[in-house]
Formats: sequence, C-alpha cells, structure tokens
Amino acid sequence: MSSPPLAPPPQWPGSPGPFGTTELPYGVFRPAGGEARVGVAVGNQVLDLAALAVADGTDPTIFRQPSLNAFLAQGRTAWDSLRRRLQLLLANAAERGEPAPHLHRLDRVRLQLPIEVADYVDFYASEHHATNVGWIFRPGADPLTPNWKHLPLGYHGRAGTVVVSGTEVVRPHGQRLPDDGRTPVFAATEKLDFEAELGWVVGVGSAPGSTVGVDDFADHVFGVVILNDWSARDIQAWEYVPLGPMLGKSFATSISAWVLPLAALELSEVDPPPQQPELLRYLQGSAPGYAIDIEVSINGEVVSRCPYGSMYYSPAQLLAHLTVNGARLRTGDLIGSGTVSGPEPGQRGSLLELSWNGTRPLLVGGDTRTFLRDGDEVVMRARTSAGQRLGEVSGSVQPAR
Amino acid sequence: MSSPPLAPPPQWPGSPGPFGTTELPYGVFRPAGGEARVGVAVGNQVLDLAALAVADGTDPTIFRQPSLNAFLAQGRTAWDSLRRRLQLLLANAAERGEPAPHLHRLDRVRLQLPIEVADYVDFYASEHHATNVGWIFRPGADPLTPNWKHLPLGYHGRAGTVVVSGTEVVRPHGQRLPDDGRTPVFAATEKLDFEAELGWVVGVGSAPGSTVGVDDFADHVFGVVILNDWSARDIQAWEYVPLGPMLGKSFATSISAWVLPLAALELSEVDPPPQQPELLRYLQGSAPGYAIDIEVSINGEVVSRCPYGSMYYSPAQLLAHLTVNGARLRTGDLIGSGTVSGPEPGQRGSLLELSWNGTRPLLVGGDTRTFLRDGDEVVMRARTSAGQRLGEVSGSVQPAR
Repeated sequence: MSSPPLAPPPQWPGSPGPFGTTELPYGVFRPAGGEARVGVAVGNQVLDLAALAVADGTDPTIFRQPSLNAFLAQGRTAWDSLRRRLQLLLANAAERGEPAPHLHRLDRVRLQLPIEVADYVDFYASEHHATNVGWIFRPGADPLTPNWKHLPLGYHGRAGTVVVSGTEVVRPHGQRLPDDGRTPVFAATEKLDFEAELGWVVGVGSAPGSTVGVDDFADHVFGVVILNDWSARDIQAWEYVPLGPMLGKSFATSISAWVLPLAALELSEVDPPPQQPELLRYLQGSAPGYAIDIEVSINGEVVSRCPYGSMYYSPAQLLAHLTVNGARLRTGDLIGSGTVSGPEPGQRGSLLELSWNGTRPLLVGGDTRTFLRDGDEVVMRARTSAGQRLGEVSGSVQPAR
Repeated sequence: MSSPPLAPPPQWPGSPGPFGTTELPYGVFRPAGGEARVGVAVGNQVLDLAALAVADGTDPTIFRQPSLNAFLAQGRTAWDSLRRRLQLLLANAAERGEPAPHLHRLDRVRLQLPIEVADYVDFYASEHHATNVGWIFRPGADPLTPNWKHLPLGYHGRAGTVVVSGTEVVRPHGQRLPDDGRTPVFAATEKLDFEAELGWVVGVGSAPGSTVGVDDFADHVFGVVILNDWSARDIQAWEYVPLGPMLGKSFATSISAWVLPLAALELSEVDPPPQQPELLRYLQGSAPGYAIDIEVSINGEVVSRCPYGSMYYSPAQLLAHLTVNGARLRTGDLIGSGTVSGPEPGQRGSLLELSWNGTRPLLVGGDTRTFLRDGDEVVMRARTSAGQRLGEVSGSVQPAR
C-alpha cells in the first residue's frame, strides 16, 4: 500500500456537484508544506478549522491534529455547536457574495486517514448478504445460522490496516485449498473481492463495565464513513472455521476520507425491516435505520447499488450488542455494518454474491469479471434518500509482490 | 473493572523471592504523587529509568511516558544496550554493597498497564487445547479442523479491554442458549473461565505490504507477558459460528504488569514438537519454542501447571503467519499464544478443559468448582526452565451488575 494520492471530490452520476452545507463532513488534510489539521469540506474546498479557531480567538489545539479523535472526544454538544457555527458562517458568506474564509482548494491538499482507529469491529447485519453467503459456503444447510436472528453477529478486525480512500491495495498472498485438493497451497489470492459497507465512527467512549443502550447511540457515535472491507475469499474459506475471518480480511480495509456527521442523516431515518422472532430487551428501543444507497463501480462502470435501509439490524443495535457485556467503547472505534446487500441481484454488495462465487461472471467494460483483476479500480459512493452525500472510498488493485 | 490495586511482587512457591538481574522486566509505575514513568523491577523495588536517564545526562523523554511504547519502538540495539547498562549498574552496586540509585519500593508504587495495545490477536497454538475443545464442542467429529495443522489459527480480540494484573473482572451478561432450549436468554454468564496464555509484545512495527519472516522474530518482538484470556463459555458457544469468538471474550483480557524481555529467555529455548504434515515454506525456519511453565491458582490453590514448551506453533510462526498477507505490525501489538495446555490432565489451561465443560468438578479449597464463582481470585505465575520468572497476572471475579 503506497501513500494515498489526492482524493477527488465525490461525484454521484447526475448529481449537481460536491458537498453542500447540509453535509459538512469532517476530515484531516495537509496543505502543501503544512502540518496536518482538521477541516470541513464545502464545495470544491476544505475549510481549515484550526485557522478558524485562531480567527475566533479560541484554542485551535483540537484541530491541529493528525486525526479527528480530539474533536470527536468532545461530544455531541460541541459537535452540534460547531456545525451550527459553520452553517451560519457559510450562509453569511453566501449572502454577502463573498468566499468563506480559511478555505483551501481540495485539489491542492492531501487527505489523510481521518481517525486514529481504536478497535475495528465488523458486523454481518444484512439478512440478504448473510443468506447469500450461507447458500454459497454451506449449500444444503439452512443459510442463516440459528443465532443470526437473535443477535447481530460480528468480529474484531485489524485496526492497524484501516487505510484512507485512494490507498492502493496489493493483492495478498495466503494459504488456500485447491478445488480438487486436501493440502493447501501458498499463492496470491485468486478471489480478491470488495465489500460495500458503512462504518460508524465512535466519538465518545464509555466506561469499562457500563453498557450503551439502543437509545444512547447518538451520544456516542459521531458520524459515518463508507467502508470497503477488501476480502480474499479463497484465503477466508480455508481459515475461517472455527475462529472466523482473519488473514482473508486483515490486509486492508479502506474508509472514506470524509466523516459525515450523524446530524446530516436526520432526514433519512427509516424503520428497519420487521424483526421476528422478537429480540431480547436490550436490543429493543428506538433504533432507526438509514435510507442510504451505496453505489459500487469497477473502472467507472456501476456494478451494484446497495440499500443500507434494508439492513436487518440498525447501527444502534450493533452498538448495544457490542457493549452489553461491559466492553468499553473508545474514541475512534470503528463499527462496520457488514456488507450491504439488498433483496435484488443488482443490490449485492460483493463480487462473491454478484458472481455467485465465480460461477456467474459479470459484464464489466465489455469484458467479464468474477473477482477483481490487477489494475481494477473500485469506487464506492453513497447518498441518503434526502440527497446528502457521504465521502467516496476508492482503491485500485496492485499486483501481488 | 475498577482501578487496579497495588500488585504484589510475584512469588513462585519455593522460589527465593522476586525478580533478579537475569530477569529485569519492564513496566510502567506511578510513585505516590508522581507522574507515570517506565521502570525495571529488581528485588522488591523498581528502578526509575527516567531518573536514571537524567542522572546519565541523556534524554529521559521516552521513559516519562504512561506506556512502554516509545521505548519499545527504539528496537533491539537500544533494548540490548539498556539491559547491559542496567546489569552493570546493579552488579557494581552489589559489589560496593550499596543500593542502586533511583529505586522505589514496589509496595509504594502503583503499576499500570505496561503497553498501549495497538492490535490484539489471539492464537490457538496448542494442539492439546484445540483437541480438548474440539472433543467438548464438536463431539463425534474430528477434534481438529482440517486447517489446524497447516496454519496457526487466530482471531483479533478487543484491544480496548486489555487490562493490567490486579484489575477486577465483573461477571459479564450476554445471550446464551439454555441446555434444553432453542431460544436464547439474556443473563449473567454461568460459565466464566480463565485461559492461561503467554502474550508476545511487538516493539518494532513493519511496513504495510511487507512480511515478517520466522527468522525476523527477535527484530520485532520485545518481550513476553502472562495473559489471562477471560472467557464466558456459554456466551461464546452461542455466538461463535460462523464469525468466531466475540462477546464471550471481549469483556476483559488481563496481562501482567511486567514485560520480560526476550533476552531473558535465551537459556530456555527449546525445539517445538514435531510438525507433521510439513508446513508451507513461510512457516519453516529457526523458530524456537520456550520452556516456560505457567502455574494457575484459584484462591491460592494450584489447579494447573501449563507447559508452554509443548505448544505446536512457535511464537515466530504466529508472527510470520500474521504478516504473510502484508498486514503491518505496530508497536504495542499484542500476540496471544492461545491457551497453553499440555498432554496431561493437570496441565490444562482452562476450566473448560479441567472440568470437561462442567461435567467433572474440581476440588478447590475443600469445595468443588466447575467454572469460576464470584469472589474467586485467579493468579497465574510463570517461570522458564532456567529459573527466570515472568510477571504474575491476577484478577478476582466481581458479581454481575
């Protein structure tokens, strides 16, 4: 994985352009010759929050940081207050017909990983995805394990290999079992895949031994990124029984450079699908889903549109489950939703599902694909039902070394 | 989990006392009214390395830290150089009949978590343990999964709930399936267990995309702690298919306050057991095991002595496997060995095995035990075949909240 190149602003096909004032996502950028600092994206620019704090006569320390973590730890009152301040500042500038102050052009700065990841947990919260995977990997058996509808299944991933959008992904080596063999071989993966997910970013931690209930979600979670959980299916299939995914996932997980605050999602809250059988009490409560569609493209061609609103478990339920044993949260915890797959074939969030484990090739750019080829660029973009855009996440596949 | 109490020096039954100059383990301590700093344990005292640096006219910054990480990142040359310096200092003081300078009595300082844990990975490297668990959880099937003898299985644990020796462990709540039921209940665990392990502490990280071969172990790993991987077996059994252990483990993992440097283990290197079938090339090479026995006691009564020398996979093989897909290491990565169980019944490293999942109660203190009761104190001590002691790890069980 090399240093990330400059990240272009996200462009949804047919959309009017990059972020507006109903989004105001946060990231970390480095201007030419300058130190890393926290900024907010507006239009084709990024507003330097450290410079704004200095101009306001307030302490800029929490924004003169290589990550959002110091700001995230401040909590919802501070988050909401700054968001209102920025919306007012930008509205006033627009009214006067002047540019807002402290702006840098996005094409002249370098975007960094926005958070220092504490623990990274990945869930498995889409019934359609889990059902497809069950059919593919355990044919003949019930596709959902008996626990699936009682708890959101998840596992811990590798925090140290979470990388920012634009970082190249080297095809990993590993052990896999040949189709006709009982003895594994060591080779580069032949089934490199993406997984389209959302990642929820924890701002405020919790005390050891305490729990974070379904209704406490917004007190702890700052916002959301798009997350590509790169996967090597052949490595994963050989290693995952009985301890779960490990080297088939741990080589790279890409997240968008921009974290969209929860406040930007208020207009796209939806009820999750019906949950039957009834869940245990600690998983009940007001836990909205969000109507957010993730669009996945390979080399510019859209291969899937994945509806987050169809997820069985809401993000608040993931957090409530994660902490019900007293495990504390920390600032920078990253909670992956699990692959977002909808009920339709064109809504599947991985090539594993789209190509049915390689048995039904897709047409991409006049050619066929089962899994990813060297040189393929995967881009994920997302927007809410109310039109707010998330930061895009991109990555291209480099040959094995 | 409350704040850790003062940790007493480790006492192996029949041993002459606490750490000597062939051990010199590192930890982080806070003297009464003072800031956290790095120290080395000698006898009943701890030598303040920040104060020593000041006296030597060198920069004390890396020792004026709340964790060992800054020192660990310096690498083997710095580690070995300081160890020689300390051995000379202590030998000279002993020769002159004077106390060494910069010492604090251990019973007057507070010991902290010695490392800021980056990623925590737990392996499953004992054939005896994996076989016992297979027999217990998958009766009738081959106890070892087909992959077990081809790769060291492991999973990522929760870094944010790694705690220092002495921290109390609250009995966690969670979902479990009643013996006679198909619908889970939510309750405090009835099968709280310990797991006796060693934890290998990474000092020097690796670059993204690079691998750390079996022969590179000592360039990256600084030393070793005892690790108690607390487990709730009923929660674990219900949740672990197909993504592996999660809430049954993530409530707490205790490590010793003292990290014993690799240099102290040189005299106890042993050949690992024969590995058949032959391993893939990246897992071959000079990868010693270590003859270290872990003694586990409940309320002062020894219940097991677990021989690390019997582990199927060496720690260098764990590291080589972990990085073979290009995943980088970071300073502070913690690599658990997996439960250490030997071939004999009295060498099993968990109550799951010792009580055969609760079916064969143990006698402890004139009473019986299957799993842990509220108030039980579990203490693990370890020493090498050459007599070097590791820091002990202790924890007592507090009632569910």
